[in-house]
Amino acid sequence: MIIKNILIVSPMHKEIKRIIESKKVQKNFRYLLEEEVNHDDFIWADAFVSFNTKSTFDYHHVKWVHSLGAGVDRFLFKNNWNENVLLTRTICSFGQRIAEYCLSYILKDLQFHDQFQAYKLQGNWHPITPKLLNEQKIMVFGTGEIGQKMAMIFSSLGVDVYGVSLSGKKKAYFKEVMSINALISRLNEMNYIINTLPLTEETEGLFDETIFMQLSNAGFINVGRGSSLNEKALLNALNQHQVRFAVLDVFAHEPLPEDNPLWNHKHVTITPHISAVTTPNEGVECFIETLKNIEENKPLHNKVDVNKGY
Amino acid sequence: MIIKNILIVSPMHKEIKRIIESKKVQKNFRYLLEEEVNHDDFIWADAFVSFNTKSTFDYHHVKWVHSLGAGVDRFLFKNNWNENVLLTRTICSFGQRIAEYCLSYILKDLQFHDQFQAYKLQGNWHPITPKLLNEQKIMVFGTGEIGQKMAMIFSSLGVDVYGVSLSGKKKAYFKEVMSINALISRLNEMNYIINTLPLTEETEGLFDETIFMQLSNAGFINVGRGSSLNEKALLNALNQHQVRFAVLDVFAHEPLPEDNPLWNHKHVTITPHISAVTTPNEGVECFIETLKNIEENKPLHNKVDVNKGY
Repeated sequence: MIIKNILIVSPMHKEIKRIIESKKVQKNFRYLLEEEVNHDDFIWADAFVSFNTKSTFDYHHVKWVHSLGAGVDRFLFKNNWNENVLLTRTICSFGQRIAEYCLSYILKDLQFHDQFQAYKLQGNWHPITPKLLNEQKIMVFGTGEIGQKMAMIFSSLGVDVYGVSLSGKKKAYFKEVMSINALISRLNEMNYIINTLPLTEETEGLFDETIFMQLSNAGFINVGRGSSLNEKALLNALNQHQVRFAVLDVFAHEPLPEDNPLWNHKHVTITPHISAVTTPNEGVECFIETLKNIEENKPLHNKVDVNKGY
Repeated sequence: MIIKNILIVSPMHKEIKRIIESKKVQKNFRYLLEEEVNHDDFIWADAFVSFNTKSTFDYHHVKWVHSLGAGVDRFLFKNNWNENVLLTRTICSFGQRIAEYCLSYILKDLQFHDQFQAYKLQGNWHPITPKLLNEQKIMVFGTGEIGQKMAMIFSSLGVDVYGVSLSGKKKAYFKEVMSINALISRLNEMNYIINTLPLTEETEGLFDETIFMQLSNAGFINVGRGSSLNEKALLNALNQHQVRFAVLDVFAHEPLPEDNPLWNHKHVTITPHISAVTTPNEGVECFIETLKNIEENKPLHNKVDVNKGY
């Protein structure tokens, strides 16, 4: 595939321009804000690079769309995609980032940060023995690039990592991989549940009471997509101690609306979709690597299967 | 060396007895509380196993003393030790425990836990990009068993780990090891400083303004010994932003006295000497392994050099 004209649409377009120019990429570029793009830009472009997308954009004329984010549901979910258009996504450091995010909250729990902070404010010398990572069982939903990186890091620290995927196919670093239909039997052994799944028709609303009622006081971390979680079911599960605490980085509606009851729940941590941020540097690096692989006809490990939706 | 009679002195002696009996160790044991021990017990015993020690105990008659803790300053610091008595210590899972403790507080910092918690209480959706471990430089004081395990874990996560030891001798997993006298030049590059050193005459009061004035807003974690830290110098360094925050697990006086100003400093975390707890199970396991190695004349990786003091 030959790519000459590249349309980059992003609120960070000036920063991206600066970095691309420093890398001396020999292509024609247009850098625009979303509201500046018009139909002519899409006629001109061979490739479209963006984090978000307007559903009204017409991808009929471009050959390649590259998402600056890891999730591509904004492109594909409940859309019809022209299969002739290549879709790729950014995955570079996301696995590492999401793993560190999850690890930080699991260690916070195992090391009793909140309890020691409360004791400190009381001037109370009260020993509790921290729990070790190698005594923990974690179930990671999603065994793709991100789930696998997570399994690699956690298992290297001694954690037993179980995976859940559509196929249930065995993958490296997982002690066992189950299909979504077979997982129920193991849920009650788990100390932590982590969702990294993309949003598809199969994963929409997946985390509902069917799953939560199997848990015994587990920690739940959502770094996949907000719409995979039934928030009401989570609040019930928290109040019934099926879920001991929840750490949520993604929400069905972002920013999370002011009146959402999750804000006020004592055992919910809320972060504003920061577990896998693309920094301009990393985004550009992944884009240039993908461009190079496309032009050299190399395999693309970040190509999206538009039928699967990830 | 032949060991027949073993004296175990610990507040946990009943639990230890239960575990040792379950392992069917073919020796004569006496399990006592410290206040129950008398001179005859020391005449009877070949080996003495304890966490703490009374300075009035007479080790003249025993062949082997085994510390249930990692630190042996309670036995050696400012004491005269009979060099004919073998001294060993518990190190089993301490490296892993201390590494997880330190990692938890470093990730808490890199992932902005406190900031996101404050924003959550305000209902404020305010993104900040977490920092990655592979952008961090950490200096670990102490390159023994514990420091090395820490270096192994941190370097596997991408951190640049620098070591400090008396000799400055190169060790695996450290990017560089410096001697205590040569370290000053690199201190200002460090994001975090971790002390794992034992208490000896060389390390008493080591962390004073000479070290702190070289730091640029670093995090300081003490999991070594409290007496290696000059608390007044730390408070000054915190107030002058040489040290951004301190996480302290050990103190010159434990429990930390109620009127100690560390309790009230906003940027100090206090934990009650829990980063490397010996659980009865682990303590017994390490003791039995050491006993076996002694009887089989195998090398002892947990033998204390009583002249060095660790």
